[in-house]
Amino acid sequence: MTRSMEELLETAEKIRTMEIRGAALIARAAASALKEFALSIEAASLEEFNGEVRRGAEILLDTRPTAVSLSNAIRTVMRYRGDDLEAARSSLAKNADSFVERSLMAVERIGEIGSRRILDGDVILTHCNSSVALAIIKTAFDAGKDIRVIATESRPRYQGHLTIKALDGWGIDTELVVDSAVRSVINEVDHVIVGADVITANGSLVNKIGTAAIALAAHEARTSFVVAAETYKFSPETIMGELVPIEERSPEEVYPGISKLAHVRVRNPAFDVTPHRYIDVICTEIGAIPPEMSYLVIKEMLGWEL
Amino acid sequence: MTRSMEELLETAEKIRTMEIRGAALIARAAASALKEFALSIEAASLEEFNGEVRRGAEILLDTRPTAVSLSNAIRTVMRYRGDDLEAARSSLAKNADSFVERSLMAVERIGEIGSRRILDGDVILTHCNSSVALAIIKTAFDAGKDIRVIATESRPRYQGHLTIKALDGWGIDTELVVDSAVRSVINEVDHVIVGADVITANGSLVNKIGTAAIALAAHEARTSFVVAAETYKFSPETIMGELVPIEERSPEEVYPGISKLAHVRVRNPAFDVTPHRYIDVICTEIGAIPPEMSYLVIKEMLGWEL
Amino acid sequence: MTRSMEELLETAEKIRTMEIRGAALIARAAASALKEFALSIEAASLEEFNGEVRRGAEILLDTRPTAVSLSNAIRTVMRYRGDDLEAARSSLAKNADSFVERSLMAVERIGEIGSRRILDGDVILTHCNSSVALAIIKTAFDAGKDIRVIATESRPRYQGHLTIKALDGWGIDTELVVDSAVRSVINEVDHVIVGADVITANGSLVNKIGTAAIALAAHEARTSFVVAAETYKFSPETIMGELVPIEERSPEEVYPGISKLAHVRVRNPAFDVTPHRYIDVICTEIGAIPPEMSYLVIKEMLGWEL
Amino acid sequence: MTRSMEELLETAEKIRTMEIRGAALIARAAASALKEFALSIEAASLEEFNGEVRRGAEILLDTRPTAVSLSNAIRTVMRYRGDDLEAARSSLAKNADSFVERSLMAVERIGEIGSRRILDGDVILTHCNSSVALAIIKTAFDAGKDIRVIATESRPRYQGHLTIKALDGWGIDTELVVDSAVRSVINEVDHVIVGADVITANGSLVNKIGTAAIALAAHEARTSFVVAAETYKFSPETIMGELVPIEERSPEEVYPGISKLAHVRVRNPAFDVTPHRYIDVICTEIGAIPPEMSYLVIKEMLGWEL
Amino acid sequence: MTRSMEELLETAEKIRTMEIRGAALIARAAASALKEFALSIEAASLEEFNGEVRRGAEILLDTRPTAVSLSNAIRTVMRYRGDDLEAARSSLAKNADSFVERSLMAVERIGEIGSRRILDGDVILTHCNSSVALAIIKTAFDAGKDIRVIATESRPRYQGHLTIKALDGWGIDTELVVDSAVRSVINEVDHVIVGADVITANGSLVNKIGTAAIALAAHEARTSFVVAAETYKFSPETIMGELVPIEERSPEEVYPGISKLAHVRVRNPAFDVTPHRYIDVICTEIGAIPPEMSYLVIKEMLGWEL
Amino acid sequence: MTRSMEELLETAEKIRTMEIRGAALIARAAASALKEFALSIEAASLEEFNGEVRRGAEILLDTRPTAVSLSNAIRTVMRYRGDDLEAARSSLAKNADSFVERSLMAVERIGEIGSRRILDGDVILTHCNSSVALAIIKTAFDAGKDIRVIATESRPRYQGHLTIKALDGWGIDTELVVDSAVRSVINEVDHVIVGADVITANGSLVNKIGTAAIALAAHEARTSFVVAAETYKFSPETIMGELVPIEERSPEEVYPGISKLAHVRVRNPAFDVTPHRYIDVICTEIGAIPPEMSYLVIKEMLGWEL
Repeated sequence: MTRSMEELLETAEKIRTMEIRGAALIARAAASALKEFALSIEAASLEEFNGEVRRGAEILLDTRPTAVSLSNAIRTVMRYRGDDLEAARSSLAKNADSFVERSLMAVERIGEIGSRRILDGDVILTHCNSSVALAIIKTAFDAGKDIRVIATESRPRYQGHLTIKALDGWGIDTELVVDSAVRSVINEVDHVIVGADVITANGSLVNKIGTAAIALAAHEARTSFVVAAETYKFSPETIMGELVPIEERSPEEVYPGISKLAHVRVRNPAFDVTPHRYIDVICTEIGAIPPEMSYLVIKEMLGWEL
Repeated sequence: MTRSMEELLETAEKIRTMEIRGAALIARAAASALKEFALSIEAASLEEFNGEVRRGAEILLDTRPTAVSLSNAIRTVMRYRGDDLEAARSSLAKNADSFVERSLMAVERIGEIGSRRILDGDVILTHCNSSVALAIIKTAFDAGKDIRVIATESRPRYQGHLTIKALDGWGIDTELVVDSAVRSVINEVDHVIVGADVITANGSLVNKIGTAAIALAAHEARTSFVVAAETYKFSPETIMGELVPIEERSPEEVYPGISKLAHVRVRNPAFDVTPHRYIDVICTEIGAIPPEMSYLVIKEMLGWEL
Repeated sequence: MTRSMEELLETAEKIRTMEIRGAALIARAAASALKEFALSIEAASLEEFNGEVRRGAEILLDTRPTAVSLSNAIRTVMRYRGDDLEAARSSLAKNADSFVERSLMAVERIGEIGSRRILDGDVILTHCNSSVALAIIKTAFDAGKDIRVIATESRPRYQGHLTIKALDGWGIDTELVVDSAVRSVINEVDHVIVGADVITANGSLVNKIGTAAIALAAHEARTSFVVAAETYKFSPETIMGELVPIEERSPEEVYPGISKLAHVRVRNPAFDVTPHRYIDVICTEIGAIPPEMSYLVIKEMLGWEL
Repeated sequence: MTRSMEELLETAEKIRTMEIRGAALIARAAASALKEFALSIEAASLEEFNGEVRRGAEILLDTRPTAVSLSNAIRTVMRYRGDDLEAARSSLAKNADSFVERSLMAVERIGEIGSRRILDGDVILTHCNSSVALAIIKTAFDAGKDIRVIATESRPRYQGHLTIKALDGWGIDTELVVDSAVRSVINEVDHVIVGADVITANGSLVNKIGTAAIALAAHEARTSFVVAAETYKFSPETIMGELVPIEERSPEEVYPGISKLAHVRVRNPAFDVTPHRYIDVICTEIGAIPPEMSYLVIKEMLGWEL
Repeated sequence: MTRSMEELLETAEKIRTMEIRGAALIARAAASALKEFALSIEAASLEEFNGEVRRGAEILLDTRPTAVSLSNAIRTVMRYRGDDLEAARSSLAKNADSFVERSLMAVERIGEIGSRRILDGDVILTHCNSSVALAIIKTAFDAGKDIRVIATESRPRYQGHLTIKALDGWGIDTELVVDSAVRSVINEVDHVIVGADVITANGSLVNKIGTAAIALAAHEARTSFVVAAETYKFSPETIMGELVPIEERSPEEVYPGISKLAHVRVRNPAFDVTPHRYIDVICTEIGAIPPEMSYLVIKEMLGWEL
Repeated sequence: MTRSMEELLETAEKIRTMEIRGAALIARAAASALKEFALSIEAASLEEFNGEVRRGAEILLDTRPTAVSLSNAIRTVMRYRGDDLEAARSSLAKNADSFVERSLMAVERIGEIGSRRILDGDVILTHCNSSVALAIIKTAFDAGKDIRVIATESRPRYQGHLTIKALDGWGIDTELVVDSAVRSVINEVDHVIVGADVITANGSLVNKIGTAAIALAAHEARTSFVVAAETYKFSPETIMGELVPIEERSPEEVYPGISKLAHVRVRNPAFDVTPHRYIDVICTEIGAIPPEMSYLVIKEMLGWEL
């Protein structure tokens, strides 16, 4: 086994064991590993090269088959073209580099794009702990805008606690509420800003449990609902009709002693689905798009081909 | 000070210190104390009797000025009539007795009335821990109906844990979800059944924080939303335009370490307001009424006069 | 057995066998039979009289336990009062007479009240074949108003064919559509006017299958939705939480050859439930009331007591 | 002709020529005139007295047949009872006095009842120029609440200019907008508060053109919509199915030169109809009621009998 | 006249006389006929060839000017390119072949794509008799999913009878309802799946009368609404503002004896229009797309050029 | 300074001083001026040419930085390509010419495309004074369709008066209403047709104050809402998250004497924002598109590149 195949396997293992975690980190690690592997392939022909690369790609994809950022990273890199082996290799490396670069710039760009919607005096509500959603808030605050944030605690894992600590560290006035108090305060809110786990082909948002109820309350109160999402969060598989699987997490997260109750069980879905008609705009690194444009992002940015 | 005035003061103190708590217990204790006090008044005239009784009533009312069941109990008892002292005394005692009796029967009657809406195979979602809402569920279950319950945990005080323990004890199949997962499961639900802290004159429901968001989700999914409420939960004061004060509870309930964060504060409203247009029916001990009929209940049952 | 008991049993039999049918005819026949029976009772005491009357009332009620007009007729007659036997007998007879008289005048009065909402040039849509709904249309037409009617065919029993024949006979311009074409024409319609089988305590309407879908389409298009209903269509039982049973009719009505298909069965509900929030007004013989006022009608007109 | 008949005719003439104008002034003038007339009738019998009074009442009613406050005043006064002439006279006088007194107190009471819904920091939007709506605002302001008002100009007659002058005179911070800008500012608004020309039996509001569009915008933004209306604004006639006639005013109000344009005509409806489902509460002198309770107000306060 | 022109005319005639019928069959027949004709053209120049082909295309288009699948087939074939005659001929033949092939595969692919949305235990409602909608259901069933179907009868032509026979033949549990019973059962339904006659440029669906009312009921109950449509159902003409003509069919279909009624006429629209905001997704052979993406399908798949 | 730079500066000055005004005129003037300037540039290299052209473009852009038609014109012209100076110059000239030509044809094409949606007997409501909206109406009328128009007066600047004069001149039956009367007449209306100041990337419409309230009323009444907009009204900047600035115009327009009132100020926003979900279709010169397709128009027609 070559040195670079070893490295690829090592990266794959880290992704599988969640030593490398988070949509962005996984995506960049996989793109880089595939590039390094491709640079080191000693092949006699373009066909052989292609075969080897495909093998590497599959190893990486197998680590987390449902991670949309991973498959988007691999798909982007695999769009290399070339009439001969070296052209192919160089095209692949360029794809990987530009994917990594775009990913690194994405948070910053989304922060800028999203923050332009925020005006002096605005109140923003956020849910869970999304780095891109927070980037929008921080960019607006750093630009001197006088803002206030309402953060949910985000049961069952209390990711809202991470959010309020970050906001506190930046000096941004923040209020913490339980998840079910959102409808009580939404009339004060100018923008709901949340992140995304997955965006589907018809513009629906798969995100932390509770997001859809917030979107519904925002819709009822004519409050703007904004999603912050890098384009690698858009799922090509959903074009083929695949539903995004909703992970059911451990009952213990919700109620540690549940096993003592004979007739009670916990249901702990990690995510829910917000229909696109409750979403005003999705801020991506390529611009603020309407949710219905997801299909186009998948086709153009992610190189989806039927 | 007479013996019975002492007893009335004792009851008042127990209500004030919350040794006696819960809308029903407070109401019955106050009605009984006022009756015992009235029975022992040694007055020279009807006027003197009336004055004494009014004094006793005011002492009781002062203990929890915003407790709607307390003021309804006192108001009901105070509707006594009589041409002479003994007739008045007897009328007052009768009012108190019938209030107590009706209150004692109310939970059972509401259980029966509400359970008639539940059919074999129905799924019921409940929030917080309401004895009347549970009475409906239990009555339906005891009648042999095959039902399933979904209970929310009801942050921040987790009253849902009491609910699932009760349901488990009765042997009813139950599922526990975090509050923000309600919209994810509501399409499976046939009836949402919740209790009430206060019903206002225009039929709005003041209840545990999170209730309004559940009502909104039920409305979005065309799921029936039922309130279980004794008539003494209806607030005469709201006819005069009074808003029901929404108690703001301790921040520590939500986030114990909040004081360490300089820029963050907790907002912890105990209740929210569900608009009447999201409520299908209110089950009371006098029947299943539309929410808009609250005004009539207040006028007729509670003896409100302008 | 007395002669008048024989007559009461005869009437009861005719109701049971549906020789006497239709909500209005049943109600009047029962009220009259009970009166005649009461007039002929030879009792030694008021108690005996009361007992006899109750027995007669129960025989009549047993014939069609779910017919709301029947139970309303009996309940109205049974509200007689009297300190002695003759006073009671006379009170009962008066109740029966006034019930019959009111019933006879109801269609005409509803026709007048409802027709005042119709303006020159209006288009009216009706469903099924309701005599009170048609009374409103005919009254408006007879008053010289230039109107047009759209009638649904009302599958599976095509009651709409009766409707168009009646309208044709009166010379009213009419269009016939299949039930599922209502949404296509509703933007041309000024008023939907339908009858009622039952009105519930919270103002919902139980009526011919398809009514609720028409109400929904009218709501979507901001078209007025009017119900025509005599007060004896209001159901006191629903105050006690009873659901109105929805009759499931024969599969053969929908698809005669269904038994030849092994995996297919017909569902043929005769009625559906229109929520009160889609109803603008209910025209009764005591006035045009909002649906939420049903509870009051039940209490005041129908003498419901808890 | 008697002196007091002369006075009654004089008052009638002033109402007809609009020398006496405004719903409240008309109502009180008519009630007083009828009382004075009744006090002076020299009749030989109760029957004669009743006949005379009826004649006087009809003269007054004829002056403005569609003025709901006028017919409500007369109807209230005419509910006198009495076994003999003097008892009848005295009962009539008492009715008239209490009507006048209640009317005089109504604005103040509505101001108090409505102002309880207003909290420190609230923004209120009002339309046209309603004295009762302004009474609510002023009462809240006088109680030291920090409020801001947005007033529409209310084309075509610019009654909003009267409103802003009154508010300016009281020192209340006010913003003036064109009617069509309401949806742009409604998210800032906590309460819309408007007056009423007529309230119908099903709780709909007939008020200055533009009111219904504001109610719709408030509903879209989950903003509270409050109506201020004395009980004599409720229309008994609507129970009988009468539609409230919508006055069409002069085209010149909208476009003075319209007659020069051959193909253009002006439509200038003075009022529109706000459906009850967009109204949160109606503040009357007898309390804050849900709109669906209008029927009861008409029956109980206004003495409507079928 | 050449042999192949004769054949083209023959095919044209069969389409005109509806010997060849059904959107798919028409489209494939026309594409094949045009190809055969082009292959046989003996032309001296590319210009002559182009002229001949255009003449053939027009003959075919004239047979059914409003059949969207026909014009899409011709347009796709006519997108041939070539620098010389033989290149053009070959390009045209390739276009025709790939159109036919794609059309043949479309039903199967849509079946696969759509069936991925169906989960074990789901209930599906379908309307009329659409082969693509049924393909989705059958694919899910064949994959072992435990499903139940509710089928409407689809008045006036009862296409639902064909549907239930097909489902019965496959052994799928099915229930038949009249069209107007859909709202009564929709709360049990997980997915509505229907076919399409035409999809417009803004994503609206033209389909069998009754479809829009089902979509509205599904929207009211938060039930998913899925359209199955081959891409040749999308109408390029609607980009130019053309409305899709709604065929008015024979009155006799609805009511055979209508001519005997002097004042009654039948309205029998064959289709209605479902607005895109009630459609969750359109399953096409190129993927599951949001309805708003129709414009893109028309531009990219169907080669529409302004 | 060259002659043509002088001319460019002259055009720029006219745009700045609003001697040249109106979205279309500005756009064409700028495109032509830039072309003339480019044709006259004497450059030694392509780089020098590019630099000069860029300088000219910036001068023009600076005149009205927020005028979306201006920046779209310049951007379109600047998409020239060329391997050498003359190729670039020629490409630029061609871009400018085709922009001007397309702009000149746009109104006519939109008139044709939009008018196809109008049927005989339709009623159309329009707001403000939009030449493209009027082109649709006039094209339909000239085609012999029997139509009626309702025009709003469009406070505060009464642009509706220009509209009714134009319609009167063409002989089209027209009705004038105050802005707040739209909801009263909308049930008679078949299509609302309005112009556009700006279309954003997510399909929202920025247009004359009052437009959004009309769209909301149309949505409530299921009335079609059509926007007429040339593609140069679509704003590329909004993709980058820029909000369209809403101009606040002079208070004197609304209330001349406002400065005399100490506590009152006027708010006079010139535009409002209509959300895309209330828009059925946008008629552009490239077709009738759904609002969500704006992003694609911006990318493809306007050459937006990230």
